[in-house]
Amino acid sequence: MTAYQCEPEPGVGIVRRQQMTWAAPLHLEGGGSFAPVTLAYETYGRLNATASNAILLLHALSGDAHAAGYHSSTDRKPGWWDVMVGPGRAFDTERYFVICSNVLGGCQGSTGPSSRDPATSAPIRPYGARFPVITIGDMVRAQARLLDALGIEQLLAVAGGSMGGFQALEWATAMPERVCGVILLATSARSATQTIAWNSIARQAIMRDPRWRGGDYYGHEPPINGMAVARMIGHITYLNEASLEDRFGRRLQTGDSPAFVLGPEFTVESYLDHQGDIFNARFDANSYLYITKAMDYWDLPGRYGSLDAAMARTHADFLLLSFDSDWLYPTAESAAIAASLRRVGRYVEHVDLHSDAGHDAFLLDHVAQEPIITNFLARQ
Amino acid sequence: MTAYQCEPEPGVGIVRRQQMTWAAPLHLEGGGSFAPVTLAYETYGRLNATASNAILLLHALSGDAHAAGYHSSTDRKPGWWDVMVGPGRAFDTERYFVICSNVLGGCQGSTGPSSRDPATSAPIRPYGARFPVITIGDMVRAQARLLDALGIEQLLAVAGGSMGGFQALEWATAMPERVCGVILLATSARSATQTIAWNSIARQAIMRDPRWRGGDYYGHEPPINGMAVARMIGHITYLNEASLEDRFGRRLQTGDSPAFVLGPEFTVESYLDHQGDIFNARFDANSYLYITKAMDYWDLPGRYGSLDAAMARTHADFLLLSFDSDWLYPTAESAAIAASLRRVGRYVEHVDLHSDAGHDAFLLDHVAQEPIITNFLARQ
Repeated sequence: MTAYQCEPEPGVGIVRRQQMTWAAPLHLEGGGSFAPVTLAYETYGRLNATASNAILLLHALSGDAHAAGYHSSTDRKPGWWDVMVGPGRAFDTERYFVICSNVLGGCQGSTGPSSRDPATSAPIRPYGARFPVITIGDMVRAQARLLDALGIEQLLAVAGGSMGGFQALEWATAMPERVCGVILLATSARSATQTIAWNSIARQAIMRDPRWRGGDYYGHEPPINGMAVARMIGHITYLNEASLEDRFGRRLQTGDSPAFVLGPEFTVESYLDHQGDIFNARFDANSYLYITKAMDYWDLPGRYGSLDAAMARTHADFLLLSFDSDWLYPTAESAAIAASLRRVGRYVEHVDLHSDAGHDAFLLDHVAQEPIITNFLARQ
Repeated sequence: MTAYQCEPEPGVGIVRRQQMTWAAPLHLEGGGSFAPVTLAYETYGRLNATASNAILLLHALSGDAHAAGYHSSTDRKPGWWDVMVGPGRAFDTERYFVICSNVLGGCQGSTGPSSRDPATSAPIRPYGARFPVITIGDMVRAQARLLDALGIEQLLAVAGGSMGGFQALEWATAMPERVCGVILLATSARSATQTIAWNSIARQAIMRDPRWRGGDYYGHEPPINGMAVARMIGHITYLNEASLEDRFGRRLQTGDSPAFVLGPEFTVESYLDHQGDIFNARFDANSYLYITKAMDYWDLPGRYGSLDAAMARTHADFLLLSFDSDWLYPTAESAAIAASLRRVGRYVEHVDLHSDAGHDAFLLDHVAQEPIITNFLARQ
C-alpha cells in the first residue's frame, strides 16, 4: 500500500469476513451450556513471530466484527472504527495484528438468537427466545476460544468503548494474565439503574410489538416498529442535549410554520424516525434483547465485592478516555475506575476529552483520541 | 370544617366535578375552528364580592381538573395538588377562590380526541385523529371562556408546573391584563430539542402500535402497549439518575441472583412496567398525542422574536421555582426567564430548591414550596 503525496493515508483496504466454529459446548454464567459456537471475525495487519503484537477490539451494542476497511470495492462505508485502524493510524496495522469479532448473541455472523437452533428438528428454525440469556463474561470466554485458535496467548491490548469497554474490563479481570494493556472509552464498571431502565424500555418496545411473536418472527415480518422505537430511545441517550439543540434546534422539516399534524414535523423527529428505520435493516430485534440484557447484568463491583477488589485482579496497564458531554457513561464513571486502579497500584492514564458529541464521541472524535492511544500502545 | 387538635389540617373535603359547554366555535392557532367546546373544572373556596381572589391552577401533561379533595368518601387518593390546596395551605381556600380545569385535548371531561365528533353522522363516533391539532394558546383561550362565565375579569394568580407553567406563561403574555401574579414551577419558555425528541418517540410508540388504528381505536382494545412504552419513557425523564440509584439500584425483583430471563428482573423494570400499565387505565392515548404535540409547539421566544420581547408583554409579578435535580426543565431554563423579566423591569423571585426527585419535585416537594408560594400570594 503506497501512500501518494497529499492523499490521505490509505486504510486497510479490502478485508475478508472470517468465521470459526467450535463444537465443544460453551458453559454459560447463567447456567447451562450450548453448542456449536461460531464467531465472525476480521483481522488487520500481521501476527508477528512471537505472537506478541495482537490487539483485540471490542464492539459496542450495535457494532460488529467489521471494524476497518471495506468488504468489496463497491462498499460505500468502511468498518465502524476505520479512522483508528490502518497503517499509521492509532491501531497501526504496520505494527499490530488487530482482531475484532462479533459478540456472542449478535446478528452479524456470530451465534445468536437468529442462528439455527440445533435442538429443533426443523432444519432452519432459529433459536429465537430459546437462545440462552448470556453475559459479558460469556461473550469474552467465546472470544478467548478465538484467540486460542489464532495462537495468541497474551494480548498486547484490549480496546473498546461503551459495551466494548465492559468486555475489555472483563478480559482484564477474568483472564488478567492474558492482557498487557487495556484501553477503555466512555464506559463503566457497572450498568447504572438509569441504563437498565432505558434498556428495559427498549426491550419492552420490542417485546410488546405483536410482530415479535414471542421471538419466533423469523420467516415473518420482524418487529420493526418496536425496534425503531428502541433505537430512537438509544439514540437520544447517545447524544448530548446541547448538540441536539445545535444540530436540530426547533427547525421544521418543511417550511417556516408548523403543519399542525400529528406526525413528525421537526427535523429532530425525522432524523430519529430515519435512525429507527435504518437500524431495522441491519440489526436483529432478538439480538438487541439479548445484548442489552447482558449489559444490564454487568456489575464488576457486585461480582467481586468492591470495585477495588475487581481492579486488584488486573495485571495490565490502563488508558481511560471519557467525554465531558457523555451523560450515559459520564466522566465520573471513568474517574472512579481510574481512582480504584491507582489505589491498587496499577499504571493508569485517564484523559477526559472535551466534546459536544455526547456518548457517541468515542466513535466520532478520533482526532483527539489518536495520539493518546498511539502513545499508550507504544509503551506496552 | 373544624380542625381538631393534633390532627392534620383537613383539606377541601368532597368536591364536585363540574363542566361547562360553549356552542360558539373556538378559533385555533393552527387554523380552523371547532365546536362545541366543553371544559371540565373544579373550584375550591369562594369567589369574593369583587371577584378579586381567584387563582387558576394549570395542570401538567397527565393531570386533570381534580387538583384537590375527593370526589366521594370512598376515594383513596385526593386530587393531584391536594397538599397545596385547602384551608391554611399554600393556595388557602379560606382566602382564595381556586379553579382548575382539564385542558382542551384532554380526556378527563374536557373536549378532546375521545369526545364525540359532531361532524359524523354516527352518534357515538369520537374525533380520534380528526381532532384538530391544538396549541398551549388554544388551551388557554378555552380557559378564558370559563373565567368569563365565572365572572372573573382578572386573576390574582395563575400557577402551574411543567406544561402547567407553559399555560401560565401563555396567560401572562397573551392576556397580560387578566393576570396579577404568575407562579411557575419547573418549566420553560420553549420546548427544547431533547424534549421534542422524547415526546416524538413517545408518539411513535403509540402510533406504531397496530391497535392505534389511525386513532380510531374507540370501541376496540386501545393501544396499551404503545402507551405503556410512552409513559415509561416520560417517567424516566421525570426522575433523576441519583434518585433512581437510591431507590432501585441494581436490586432484583426476586432473590439475590438474576433469573437469566428476557423479561423484567430488576426492580426498576417492574416499577416502570407498573407505571406503564396503570397509566393506560386512566389516560387516553390520543390525548397523549395531542397534548405532547401542543407542548412541542411551545416557543415564546420564537413567537415574539425574543424572550425579552415576550416577557415585556407581561404586567404581572412572577415567582419561579426550579429544582436542582430536574434535567427535563433544568434550573437554567427558569433562570433565563427570571433574568429576562428583570431586564424588562418586572418583579421576580426565583428560588432554586434542592431536591433529589428530579422534575417530579414540583409535585412532591411541597414542604419547601409552601411558605414561598404563601408569601408570594400574600403580597399580590
